[in-house]
This record gives sequence, structure tokens and C-alpha cells, in this order.
Amino acid sequence: MLKVNQYIKDGANTFLKKEYFYLTIFCVMFSVLLLVAVDKPWHDDEHPPFPYTTFSFIVGAATSMLAGFIGMRIATSTNVKTTYLCNTDINLGFDAAFRGGQVLGFCLVGIALLVLEILILSFKNNVISGEHTDFEVVRYQVRELFEFVSGYGLGGSTVALFGRVGGGIYTKAADVGADLAGKVKESIDEDSPLNPGTIADNVGDNVGDIAGMGADLFGSLAESTCAALVVSASSNALLLTDDAIYFPLLVTSVGIAVSFATIWFSKINTSIENKLKIQLIVSTLLMTVALIPLLQVLPETLDISFAGKDYLCTRWKAYGCIMLGLWSGLVIGISTEYYTSKTYRPTQELAEACLYDAATNIIKGLALGYLSNVIPIICLSITVLFAFSWGAMYGVALAAIGMLGCLPIALTIDGYGPISDNAGGIAEMSNLHKDIRQKTDELDAAGNTTAAIGKGFAIGSACLVALALFGAFVTRVAETLGNHGSFSVDILEPFTFAGLLFGAMLPYWFSALTMKAVGEAAEDMICEIGRQVPLIKAGAAPDHEKCIDISTKASLKKMIAPGALVIVSPLLGGYLFGYQATAGILAGGIVSGIQIAFSASNSGGAWDNAKKFTEAGKLNRSLMERDTAKFGDEDTMPNGQSVWVKKGDDEHRAAVIGDTVGDPLKDTSGPSINILIKLSAITSLVFGSFIAAEGGVIISADSM
Amino acid sequence: MLKVNQYIKDGANTFLKKEYFYLTIFCVMFSVLLLVAVDKPWHDDEHPPFPYTTFSFIVGAATSMLAGFIGMRIATSTNVKTTYLCNTDINLGFDAAFRGGQVLGFCLVGIALLVLEILILSFKNNVISGEHTDFEVVRYQVRELFEFVSGYGLGGSTVALFGRVGGGIYTKAADVGADLAGKVKESIDEDSPLNPGTIADNVGDNVGDIAGMGADLFGSLAESTCAALVVSASSNALLLTDDAIYFPLLVTSVGIAVSFATIWFSKINTSIENKLKIQLIVSTLLMTVALIPLLQVLPETLDISFAGKDYLCTRWKAYGCIMLGLWSGLVIGISTEYYTSKTYRPTQELAEACLYDAATNIIKGLALGYLSNVIPIICLSITVLFAFSWGAMYGVALAAIGMLGCLPIALTIDGYGPISDNAGGIAEMSNLHKDIRQKTDELDAAGNTTAAIGKGFAIGSACLVALALFGAFVTRVAETLGNHGSFSVDILEPFTFAGLLFGAMLPYWFSALTMKAVGEAAEDMICEIGRQVPLIKAGAAPDHEKCIDISTKASLKKMIAPGALVIVSPLLGGYLFGYQATAGILAGGIVSGIQIAFSASNSGGAWDNAKKFTEAGKLNRSLMERDTAKFGDEDTMPNGQSVWVKKGDDEHRAAVIGDTVGDPLKDTSGPSINILIKLSAITSLVFGSFIAAEGGVIISADSM
Repeated sequence: MLKVNQYIKDGANTFLKKEYFYLTIFCVMFSVLLLVAVDKPWHDDEHPPFPYTTFSFIVGAATSMLAGFIGMRIATSTNVKTTYLCNTDINLGFDAAFRGGQVLGFCLVGIALLVLEILILSFKNNVISGEHTDFEVVRYQVRELFEFVSGYGLGGSTVALFGRVGGGIYTKAADVGADLAGKVKESIDEDSPLNPGTIADNVGDNVGDIAGMGADLFGSLAESTCAALVVSASSNALLLTDDAIYFPLLVTSVGIAVSFATIWFSKINTSIENKLKIQLIVSTLLMTVALIPLLQVLPETLDISFAGKDYLCTRWKAYGCIMLGLWSGLVIGISTEYYTSKTYRPTQELAEACLYDAATNIIKGLALGYLSNVIPIICLSITVLFAFSWGAMYGVALAAIGMLGCLPIALTIDGYGPISDNAGGIAEMSNLHKDIRQKTDELDAAGNTTAAIGKGFAIGSACLVALALFGAFVTRVAETLGNHGSFSVDILEPFTFAGLLFGAMLPYWFSALTMKAVGEAAEDMICEIGRQVPLIKAGAAPDHEKCIDISTKASLKKMIAPGALVIVSPLLGGYLFGYQATAGILAGGIVSGIQIAFSASNSGGAWDNAKKFTEAGKLNRSLMERDTAKFGDEDTMPNGQSVWVKKGDDEHRAAVIGDTVGDPLKDTSGPSINILIKLSAITSLVFGSFIAAEGGVIISADSM
Repeated sequence: MLKVNQYIKDGANTFLKKEYFYLTIFCVMFSVLLLVAVDKPWHDDEHPPFPYTTFSFIVGAATSMLAGFIGMRIATSTNVKTTYLCNTDINLGFDAAFRGGQVLGFCLVGIALLVLEILILSFKNNVISGEHTDFEVVRYQVRELFEFVSGYGLGGSTVALFGRVGGGIYTKAADVGADLAGKVKESIDEDSPLNPGTIADNVGDNVGDIAGMGADLFGSLAESTCAALVVSASSNALLLTDDAIYFPLLVTSVGIAVSFATIWFSKINTSIENKLKIQLIVSTLLMTVALIPLLQVLPETLDISFAGKDYLCTRWKAYGCIMLGLWSGLVIGISTEYYTSKTYRPTQELAEACLYDAATNIIKGLALGYLSNVIPIICLSITVLFAFSWGAMYGVALAAIGMLGCLPIALTIDGYGPISDNAGGIAEMSNLHKDIRQKTDELDAAGNTTAAIGKGFAIGSACLVALALFGAFVTRVAETLGNHGSFSVDILEPFTFAGLLFGAMLPYWFSALTMKAVGEAAEDMICEIGRQVPLIKAGAAPDHEKCIDISTKASLKKMIAPGALVIVSPLLGGYLFGYQATAGILAGGIVSGIQIAFSASNSGGAWDNAKKFTEAGKLNRSLMERDTAKFGDEDTMPNGQSVWVKKGDDEHRAAVIGDTVGDPLKDTSGPSINILIKLSAITSLVFGSFIAAEGGVIISADSM
């Protein structure tokens, strides 16, 4: 066990080091760009201003890398513990995996918040000079302060994007390759020690699902906080009331406290899936109550002005915004569970489609994913409608912070999944007793559903965060152009509509690049495993390194193009065609991206669990004979075949094909799109003044 | 042959009659709604106005049904001729199928134009009273006239939607079911007389691809012309110059003449695929030249005002708009060909992915579809950018008309595909000599690619048409609200953004419903065929009726929900939340819908042709051994297996799974989305005054 674990640890360490090496190079280059286009310290020769944005960017990127690294270390230490404790009792195993997730969740949120606060405090005294009595100057300085701090979110999200894309390609190339070559072609068990791709698969869980997901949600938190802070500056009441401006940070702090309290409820004696669900529900309920006293920090009425309109938000409306986000998150989570858990009809119907053919499974799975968009999007539309109407972009940012309110719990549950997945892998590869593998499988199945829920949160909050950042970007552009009054992003403007069209295409382009990368790397992996397996069966030792190498190389090489696409598109669009184009691209990317993200993540989750449903021997073959007769109570069909589908049957193979198709959708392209929409929005915000001042070099709305 | 053909004819006739029966009921109900909400003849008790909109709607619906019916009759008479003539010479077969397509194309476009003109002329004298000398009154009346006429487009598109969705479900349920049950499970040839589902499959080609596609493009033409006419009223120069206002109709007429001329070039002696491509290119070139003299009809400068801004369009800029549309259409077509034809790398790579597994084929096929969005969307963005900047919505409408310029040719080629597909089916079912089937297959393969090109045109033009209609809707709302000056559709407005989010989700919901319908009907079909095949093999006659019945019932029942979704959403959104919500829903639907439509149609086309590539024996197994060695020149692998994949191999099966998954994407959900975005836009336009006056009953932007 320890040997297997060491392989995984080493693999993950090696990959992260390599990935971070390239990321560091990229960040240095990007810092130079920031320096040139945003900070411009040479503009004032005598007192060159401190390059605040660049500095924040570097701090954000470094913190994000640190967070990913810590997460990976925790996960690779806990996985083997979980396997070991499952030997004794499944509950002990659960506790170990769950505690691993906890450490991860609290560490990440704590670090994110702490570094952000340090950054604000250290900038504050320099940016806001107390000398000015003119209120407008103070307002300007406060906004500037938080725009500087936005670099922190930018840094975090940049690292998160490459972490997600790189990690996603890594893990799914290994997973798809190992499954198809091993399970399907050579008929050896998942995670079997005979399969040289399994170590890479398990390493991938750590670098993709732990380091990637951690950095993603870290970025969301940082960005929604930054967006709320930037928008705060428009409100006199918020500026004049002590500490009111830090309200968003306080909400997150309360979330940490509530999450601590919630963990007590994990002791309740019930099924593991229920334990995890109780965590989500209890934390939401506690948060609803705990935030009420905090409202005292806010002034009675908040006068928020946005796009030339005044929004009269009250303390209670602000509370309403947070609640909309918080409860929408829960509804999105429950809807995700309904569509992806094997205890409900949608996934069971998917399993039944496997009785006919793999093609019907795929068709219905795609349809399921598309359909699963409906509830989350209605929730988000309602949230946007009211939060926006009550408190403009401040309301939207609060809703995002509300949705991320119980982030430590969400991260705990997210971290729990890959840890128990890994524990199962270690059990299998160490040739432990079947009983132990069964126990870890039970832990893993529960983790699968909750992982889908976690993705739902991440996507929903990304939508709100991106919208708030979009609002901040527009405001910044208007300020730069000296247009403090009314401004709009008018769809009836050629550049905006063309941008909208183009922006809505970006998530497709991005998905195509990442999915193709997984497909190609998986093909290489299949060739390699196909080459090795006969040798291993003949007695040779499996060459894990070679498989790890394929995944590593593919992910590092193939993460560049999609990453660049996200960062470059809105900037280039703005530079060439003016800020209206950027605004269109951002809005198009948001509204189109979240749809692909939700449907990809849910289709994938449902296929995975339909396969698990089939493997658990619960798929009833007689269900196919709709029009003739039912044999539900008997165990054999008229032709002597067993009623129950088992591993290796054609029907199971159809389920495996669905699962494999879903892999890159749910773990590579889908979750990366969250970051795509957030990152393009925050990039535009940070470069907002640059786009406004220098944009439209080819042609712009003003020149036509 | 004649017996088989009679089966197909009867099946198609029966289905269309049933479908049109239900459609008539729906249209009557919808007419009542139009009467109540739009025409309101009782408002003036003494001189109740004529219900122009309702009347136009009924005419449009009836014409569209007639067009579909004529198309179906032509196709079902030509298919058997094509089979018969292939007996003699493939070129004679080609001529027969191509002429069938021609009759179809010219009939449809001719009828559409004729009826539209009659409608305009008969309304004109009543609506525009010559008495008024006040120019603004004349302008108002002209706009009113064309808004009445928009009912024609609405009627056409409503029938088209149900035709496409119903026909699409019918044809693909039969196709998927017959393929999976017959070809895959029972290993009998495609279209074999042993398979009871083949008649339904061939009937489906006629009702889906002929009647559905005809009605679709008929609707596009009617709507883009209506949109251009409505917008014309904003221009003084257009109103004051004789006949200038009918410029859009003249462009279509020139298109008919150009198409006639182009048909001469089908005599060129080259491959069939080239013959069809030459048609497209030559017609585009001729159109480019032929339109120049027509510009004399237009005034030198067109003063178009839109959304409070004045656009100074010139004669040559108007020409530019048409050219942008025309040539964008060609580029979209060529890009579609690149991604879906088996002569290029993308589809060949897809076939190679089948060497690994069905899952890699699906993953890469989805990625291919996503990637194929890039070029068309860039083309459309550029077209929108310039056409909008030059001539506002008039420019966009002209671009749409330009893209549909050579519509008769496009329809000829579109009709050619299903006719030769059917010819192949008849050859197979009549147990004719293999040679004949080979000839019809050759005709069919060429038709496959050009069908994908036709879909590209349909989607691209739908985007432009919908945008122009969207502009007309906004203008109508502004007029109703008495706001003749500046107005905008501001994304920074809660109701608009929430609508945008919701609207972008609609195409997903719609696709989910149609794909699920195909999946479920196909499952029933598989059961039925599975029940019959053993009996047929034992000597019983195939029961085609039963299979036709499954398709008919499924399509009639399952077309209601998606159809209602499209028509109801923007209306209900506007009624409940005000016109800003409707505007958002429309814009969201357009930008998100065309992406799904392009990618679905191209993924499906590429999978289909990857399968054809494999079946043609061109897939080289040794390509898999990337890292070890190549055996490209030898015909056997080291293990003695043939290098070339043939029908029935695992690799071929992987290709068939891809093809089957693509079927509903490319022929049911994908092409229906065109109509979705056009229909929701024109519904909103026709109900525009109603939404503006009565909208926002729950809550609206003005009440918050």
C-alpha cells in the first residue's frame, strides 16, 4: 500500500512541479504585460507609482499554486490512511477521507481570505491618502484600491485555469486510456495492478480534481469578493459607515464559522450519502440564521448607483441577495443530484437505454444533460433578476458570495470524492481483500454524486461572479472615458451584437480543444497500454512511468492553446474593435458557457452512475420487453439468459462507452468553462482602462 | 420497385395528412389568439378592421403546407425514376434526381414569392389610404402594412417548425431503430427487405428532409423579406423612390433567374460531388454580377434610422450587405464541407478514432462539431458587424436575403439528397442487382455532403433573419410605447440579462425534448423489429405498418412540447415580465441556438461520413501502431488480420455507433433550432404591440 501510495505521491509531485514551472514562466510574462498595459510605472518619472496590480497578480498566482500544492499533499497522505482504516471499519475510513477534505476546505478558504486581507491592508494606507476632504476623490481612491486588488483574483484564476485544463487533460487521458485499453479490450479490472495506466489515473485524480478544483473555487471566492468591493465604492452609505465596505469579507468569515459548526452533524448515524447531503442542508440553514446579526454592519439603506441609475438597496434587500445566492446554490445542488444520482429515474433510464445499444445511451445522456440545464438556469435567472434589481452589481456580487457562503463545506465534500476514489485504487493495486475494495467503492459512489453537486455550485457561482465582474468592467470603462453618468451595453449596437455571437462561440472552441486533447492523449495511452499488457501478463513489471509521461506531456502541451484563447480573446477583441466588442464577448461567453458547463458536467455524472448502477447488478434486462411481457420477478429470461446484466455483458459495455464519453465532458471541458467565463471577465476588468483608452485600433463603433 | 415505391408514397401521404390535420387544429387555435391579442377587430364597433395579421398567418400556414405537400409528391415520384434510370446509366440517374430537386426548388421559391406579392398587393390599397399628405402617416401605414404581412412568415414558420420536429422525430426514430435492430443486432444489410423498419425509414426521408426542409427555407425567405420590408419604412428615401421598397423581392427574383442560368452548368462532365459544388459556386458568382444593375432601383443614399440613430447607407453599401451574406454563405458551406466530407482530414481522423473505441469516436466527433463552429461564427460576426454598421437592420435583412439569394439552387441540392437516398432504398428493397445499389450509393454519398452544406446555409441565414426580426420587434415595441426616439436593449438591465440567460437555455431544452423523443421512439422500434425479424426469417411477410405506426404516433405526440416551448416562451416571458425580458430571451436564443445548430449538424454529418469512409474499406488498421511500426503498404497486420477494416468488424461497429448518435443531432434537433430562433423572433414581432402594451403583469422593469 505504501509503495503504491509513494508512486502516486511522486507522480503528483512531479507533475505539479513541472506544471508550476511552466505556469511560473507564463505568469512572469503576463506580469510584464500587466506592467506595460495597466500599471505603467514610468508614466510618472519622479514618483513612479508602485505596480499594485502586477504585485496583486503575482501574490494571487503564488497563493493559488500554494493552495493547489497543499491540497495535493493532504489528499495524497489521506488516501492511503482511508484504505488502511477501511480494513477495520468503513466508518473509520469515511472519517479519514472526510477529515482530509475538511483540512483542505478550511485551509484553502482561510488562506484565500487571509492573503486578501493582508493585501488590502498593506495597499490601503498608500492608495487612500487621508488628506483629501473631497468625497469624490475618496470614492475614486477606494475604487482604485479594489481595482488594484482585483489582480489577486486574476492571478488566482489564471493558475486555476491552467490547473483545471492541464489537470483535466492529465487525469482523463489516463482514465479514458486505462479504461478502454484495460477494462474493455483486455478485460482486466479497473485499477488492476496489471494495467500500467492506473497509477497515472490515480495521480490524475489528485492533480485534476484536488489541485484544479481547489484553485477554481479559490479563484471564485477571491473574484466575487473583489467584484463586491469594487462595486461598493459607488455607494456613499457604504463608504461612510465604518467597516460596512468589508461586509463581503465578513460574510465569508461567518461561512467559515458556520462550516465549523456543521461538521458536528457528520456524526449523525446514517448512510454516507445522507451524511454528505446533511452537511449541505444544515450549513445552508445555519448560514441563513447566522447572517441576520451581521446585517448590523450595513447601513440601513445603501445608495448604490450603477450605469447612471440609482438603486435604493436596504439592509434587508442585501440579505435577500445573499439568500437568493445561498438557496439557489442548494436548489442547483439538489437538481444536480436528481439528474446524476442512480437513486433517481433519469440515471436509471440511462442505464435502461444501454439494453438497446450504446448509441441510445449516448443520445439519451446528451438529452439528459441538456434537460438538466433547465432548473439551474431558471434559478440563476431569478437570482440575477432580483439581486440586480435590488442592488445592481453589488447585489449580484453578494449573491455570488452567498452561493459560495459555505465554501469550506463544499470543498470538504469535493475533496472527499477523489480521496476515496484514490483509496479504492490503492486497495486494488495493493491486491487487498475484495471486502476492502467494496467498502472503498461505497465511499466513492457517494463521492461521485456530491462531486457533481460541487460542480453545480462552482458553475452557478461562476455565472454570478462573472456578471458582477462584467459590471465592474463596464463601470471602469465608463470612468476611463470620463462618462460617469448613464451608460449601457446595447445589444442594438453592431459591435456588441457581433461580440455576443463571437463570445457565445468561445466555450465551444475551448471545449473542442480540451476534448480533442483528451481524445488524442487517450489514443496514445491505449497504444502504450496495449503494448505493455501482454508483456506484463508474461511476467514483466508494469512501466508506470511511460504512462505518466504520456499524460504529463499531453497536458502540458495541450493546455496552452485553450488557456491562451480565454485570456487573449476579450483583450484582442477590445484592442482591435473597442470596448463594446469586449462587452459583447464577455456577455456571450457567460450566457453560452454556463449552459455547456452544466450540461457537460451532468451528462458525464449521469453516465458514470448509470455504469455504476449496471455494475451493481441492478439493471433488469426484462425491462426491454415492453410490449410483450414482463419477467421482473424471475431471474432468467425465456431464452435462459440472466435477467440481471453483469460486468462484461454487451449492455455493460454500452454503459462503459457512455461513461468514457462523459469523462472529458465532466472533468476536463465542463469544469474548465467556469474558469473561462470568470477569467475572461476579470482579465477585461483589470485591463479595462487599457481597452477603453487604446481599444478599437482596426475599427470601432466610434469610427463608423 | 413500383410496389415498394407505392408503400413509401402511401406512408408519406398518410403521415402528412395526419400531421396536417393536427397542424390545422393548432393553426385555428393560434388564429383565435392572434385575433384576440393582435387584430382585435371589435375595438371599433362601427367599422371593424379587417383581421389582416390573422389572415396573413392563415395564408402563410396554408402555403407552407402546400409547399411541403408538393415537395413530398415530387420526391416520391422521382425516387423510383432515379432507381430505374440507374439501371441504364448513373448519369441518367443523377439527372433524374437532380431534376426532381430542381422542380422542388423552383416551385417552392416561386410559390413563396408569388403568394407574398399577392398578399401585399391586396392589402396595399386598403391599408395605405392615398388621402394623407402627412408623410409620417404614410410612413406609419407602410410599416403597418408590412407588419400585417409578417403574419405570412409566422404562418410559414409555424408549419415549418412542426414539420421539421415531427418529420425529424419520424425519420430518425425509424432510421436509428432500423439501423440498431437490423444492421447491428441482426447483421442484416441496410434497407434490406428483411427489415420491417426500412419503409418507415424511407418514408421519413421524404417527410423530414423534403417536406420539413422545404417548409424551413420557405419560412426563412418569407421572414427575411418581411423583416426587410418592415425596416424599409424607416427610410424616407426608400419610401419616396418608386419601387425601391420592393428591392428585397427583386433580389429574390434575380436569384431565381440566376439559378435558372446556373443549371446549365450541371452538364459539365465531372464527378457528381463536383457537379453539385459547381452549382453553388457558379450561382454565387453570377449573383454577384447580376445584382449590380438592380442597384439602380435603389436611391443613391438611403437614410435609415434605427433605435434613434441615423445610418447613412448608400446604394453600394446595400450591395455590400447582400454580398456579405452571399459570400458568407459560401464560406460557411465550404467550411461545412471541410469538416464533414470524407475527403478531408477531420472526418478521416474521426474514422481513425474508431480504431481505438466507439468512445474515442464520440469524444472526437463532439469536439469536431464544436470546432466547426469557429469559421461560420466568425463569418456571421463579420457580416453582422458591417451590415449592421452600414444599414442597421435593413442591412442585416439584406444580408439574410443575400445568403438566401440562390435559394432555388440550395433547395435543388437539398432535395437531391433524400431523393437519391430513397432511390438506394428502393433498389435494395426490390432486390435489384448490387451494381444498381452501388450507383445509387454514389449518388447518395455526394448528397450527404451537400445536405450538410444546405444545413449550414439554413442556420446562417436563420441567424441573420432572426436578428433582423429582433430589430423589427424592438422598433415595434418602441413605437407602441410612443418612444420614437432613442431606445436600447441594455444588457445592464436586470430583466434583459435574466432573459438572455433564460433564452440561451431554450435551445438546450428544445434539443433535449426532441432527442429524448427520438431515443424513446427508437427503443420501441428496436423492440418491434427484434420481434418481427425472427418471424420474417422464418418466412412471414414484414409488417411495415406497425413500424410506420410507431414513428407516426411518436412524432405526432412528441412534437407538441418542443413546439409549444418555442412559441410560448417569448410571449409568456413578455406577458409576465415585460418586453425587456422578451428582448433578452430572443437575443439569448439566437446567440446560443446557432452554436448548437452548427455543431450538431456538423458532428452528425462527420460521423455519417466517417462510417461511409469505413464501409468503403478505406480505414487502415495499421495507423494505430503509431509508436511501433507502420504497415501501410502491406495488406495484413503482423497478427494476420487484414489492414483494412470491413463491415461487421469492431471498428466498423464503433463507426456505426457514432453515426447513430449523430442521426438525431443532424436531422432532428439541429435543423429545428433554425426554426426555433426565427419563429420565436417573428412571434414576438407579430405580438410586439401586445407585449409592449399588456406585458409585465407579474413584475417589470418599470415597476421595480
